[in-house]
Amino acid sequence: MSGIAQTPEPPYYAVIFASQRTKGDSGYGKMADKMVELASQQKGFLGVESARDEELGITVSYWDSLESIKNWKENSAHRIAQDKGKKEWYMNFSLRVCRVERHNFFEM
Amino acid sequence: MSGIAQTPEPPYYAVIFASQRTKGDSGYGKMADKMVELASQQKGFLGVESARDEELGITVSYWDSLESIKNWKENSAHRIAQDKGKKEWYMNFSLRVCRVERHNFFEM
Repeated sequence: MSGIAQTPEPPYYAVIFASQRTKGDSGYGKMADKMVELASQQKGFLGVESARDEELGITVSYWDSLESIKNWKENSAHRIAQDKGKKEWYMNFSLRVCRVERHNFFEM
Repeated sequence: MSGIAQTPEPPYYAVIFASQRTKGDSGYGKMADKMVELASQQKGFLGVESARDEELGITVSYWDSLESIKNWKENSAHRIAQDKGKKEWYMNFSLRVCRVERHNFFEM
């Protein structure tokens, strides 16, 4: 699940989620892992990339269509996590939905 | 420069850069800071978000147009950093160019 996502040829879609956390875990790590696992089982899921440091967390998930993104947004377990995120885990966050026009992979 | 980028209303463009580093710094930290500073002075730059942990680094830069992205790619100081990245700093990386269709910001 970790590292650089191996996505198919563009076009496809990306959701860029950037967040600043509150202090402490409060069950966050476990739920975050569970959400990645659950997302990866959804129809149209293409991959995910995630990194977090003291300043910021960035998770980018890749999808085959806007329809798949909408379905994942409305997934019931995901909605519970979204609520908890707003109430407990995040100080602030941004969500961006993008169409990936081109990509390049480099292995040294 | 840190935290969530305050970008204008979509549409605009994002470059998602995900990378896995080689061990050691080898001047990386200093160059990375310099590149963010330099990028932010380019025409059409809208913001940047960056996070790195042991697995992966993700930097997302936001731009007003594909033309601005192209100009930044071809910037001479940036090209030197790109070469050094390929030779020394990265084990592998991916670059994705996307059109941001919509965004949402949440402050708790």
